[in-house]
Amino acid sequence: MAYDMTYNPENIFAKIIRGEIPCDKVYEDEHTLAFNDINPQAPVHVLVVPKGSYVNMDDFHAQASDIEIAALIRAVGKVAALKDLPETGYRVLTNNGHDANQEVPHLHIHVIGKRNLGRMVGKPAG
Amino acid sequence: MAYDMTYNPENIFAKIIRGEIPCDKVYEDEHTLAFNDINPQAPVHVLVVPKGSYVNMDDFHAQASDIEIAALIRAVGKVAALKDLPETGYRVLTNNGHDANQEVPHLHIHVIGKRNLGRMVGKPAG
Repeated sequence: MAYDMTYNPENIFAKIIRGEIPCDKVYEDEHTLAFNDINPQAPVHVLVVPKGSYVNMDDFHAQASDIEIAALIRAVGKVAALKDLPETGYRVLTNNGHDANQEVPHLHIHVIGKRNLGRMVGKPAG
Repeated sequence: MAYDMTYNPENIFAKIIRGEIPCDKVYEDEHTLAFNDINPQAPVHVLVVPKGSYVNMDDFHAQASDIEIAALIRAVGKVAALKDLPETGYRVLTNNGHDANQEVPHLHIHVIGKRNLGRMVGKPAG
């Protein structure tokens, strides 16, 4: 099943970006917003999102500008530093589409750390 | 324990980039190389690496140019497309430093797909 690539501006991250729903902000710049995940999977679990309307990596890599892409990745590094993760290590990941169970149809990068995150690159569900 | 951020040019990915060790190439451009993981964790498991000398996200986000960063992320999207992953979904992740058990000290992004990758953002080891 193909993931619906039509951007839905009523998704929850779009509402957070527009300020219609509050978030626990960690970092913000012109192109990027980062906030603590409301259901953290680790002691540090931050979501980093582009402010542009991108469903996931598929439209982001094809349509975003170099500046937007660089801003998103630099924001990941800045968030890690703000959370003191470079000393301990951390995982950065994004789930895209159906098989990865992407839940919110706005590109979001997870930054997780402060415990042993395992040797797996991505544990399957079962 | 802090991860050693001194880049070691004898790491295996540096040798692959220099052509001293072969790889099963998936994609290459001026700034980026992608090849199949020799120990795949899923039917599709590609590693995407910058050609520049970066240990992980920490030095990459701070030192790489916008062009290098954009090239790396666009390469991830191109690899996903080459492997027919947008239709099914896929996970993109990078492990940084000690807690994430980063094994090769050259930044590498895993692109994995073609099965159910689970709801977890990153399963802990135990």
